[in-house]
Amino acid sequence: MRIALRVIGIGPGNPRQLTLQAVDALADVDVFLMLDKGQAKQTLADARREILARHAAPTHRVIEVADPPRDRAPDDYDAEVKRWHRARATVLTDVLTGELVDGGVAAFLVWGDPALYDSTLRIVDDLCEHSGLDIDVEVIPGVTSASALTAAHRITANRIGEPIHITTGRRLAETPAGADGNQIVMLDGDLTFRRTADPDDHIWWGAYVGTDDEILISGRVADVADRIVAVRARARERVGWIMDIYLLRKS
Amino acid sequence: MRIALRVIGIGPGNPRQLTLQAVDALADVDVFLMLDKGQAKQTLADARREILARHAAPTHRVIEVADPPRDRAPDDYDAEVKRWHRARATVLTDVLTGELVDGGVAAFLVWGDPALYDSTLRIVDDLCEHSGLDIDVEVIPGVTSASALTAAHRITANRIGEPIHITTGRRLAETPAGADGNQIVMLDGDLTFRRTADPDDHIWWGAYVGTDDEILISGRVADVADRIVAVRARARERVGWIMDIYLLRKS
Repeated sequence: MRIALRVIGIGPGNPRQLTLQAVDALADVDVFLMLDKGQAKQTLADARREILARHAAPTHRVIEVADPPRDRAPDDYDAEVKRWHRARATVLTDVLTGELVDGGVAAFLVWGDPALYDSTLRIVDDLCEHSGLDIDVEVIPGVTSASALTAAHRITANRIGEPIHITTGRRLAETPAGADGNQIVMLDGDLTFRRTADPDDHIWWGAYVGTDDEILISGRVADVADRIVAVRARARERVGWIMDIYLLRKS
Repeated sequence: MRIALRVIGIGPGNPRQLTLQAVDALADVDVFLMLDKGQAKQTLADARREILARHAAPTHRVIEVADPPRDRAPDDYDAEVKRWHRARATVLTDVLTGELVDGGVAAFLVWGDPALYDSTLRIVDDLCEHSGLDIDVEVIPGVTSASALTAAHRITANRIGEPIHITTGRRLAETPAGADGNQIVMLDGDLTFRRTADPDDHIWWGAYVGTDDEILISGRVADVADRIVAVRARARERVGWIMDIYLLRKS
């Protein structure tokens, strides 16, 4: 059985930050596979619903695929991860074969761009390896949250000719000197810059960037760190979840 | 005089990799300012013309703005750069005041995303500082060539949780150990990875990514370096110019 499988980057949250290529790719999808873990990210779910209502075929189906159970403390970690990946591929294969006819089209939607800190392409690789299906994979790039952040602040990511380092909160302290001139930090629930940055470094922070809830703060780290902490906590309380990102620049 | 000035990211070359937000932003622009230096990048000029024909108002004007003359070997380098920046701001101010009425809309189009290795936002900063106009700047993010590259190769930019370093050919050799696990290299006419990478490192290279001329090569550096050199040289000869980018991953 031959199917088309599209991994579609839909941008960081604003339905207008979808590309025309993504619009084209959404139009004839039979089945959208959602791998969400049921988090209460209502704004994102609304944005995704709006995208599908506007751009997908009226006949499309949305299938939520739950992850199979996983042993979090196995005797053999690697074997358990492998087993779990195969179990997930089996679940997805069952959905695809049950929902599609030969030549059908399935798609995963990915916030931002599928290349950055997202596991969908790894899941697709598993699926191609284990499903026994003849899968034609296409990836549609999306606007990254990094680009949305810098656009909202109306800044460049780098000073002239300088490199840019994209990292996570967990890895921020490991960035070597010489790579830390311009850092874009994602997935940082702890606002780790408070421990790693110099007081004179500059930060451009943003939450829910590009959406109606967008919040932007920028300035010297010493001047704005406390405000970011407070505003972030309040926003998380009010909205129910938070998605934020920042650019840190050495002074 | 109050004007709106938009800096619109239009993606890396495929007119379908434009966002809906960019389409919205193009629709009521009175004057598009082009800062090109007359390079013979016919494919890009064609793509841009296609974008304007499809999305801009029928009444839009395109004004090509030549850079003012610049002394490349001045006695006082900083003073000359400053003078040149002001001269450029003056030229642009003259165009804006001559072409727009109060409340008019001008725009710069930027390939890829305006935040990455592009000078337009610096020019806009100059203009805001020196023009005497009341300029309301808006920046529209675009799909980066890095995202187009990884999508074309159907890969993620990073292995799980790892950082990504974006740099130029000129700076590639300076990337410190620990930041070089996943490097996206732009503006590298010399294919500098041949001097910096280990034979077992993996490279994913692409030229004219996302366009009809797209060429993709990937593999172990030792296995594909010569082929990339040869294919790149032939493509440059055939097309008349080249725009390429690659991801380098430590083995």
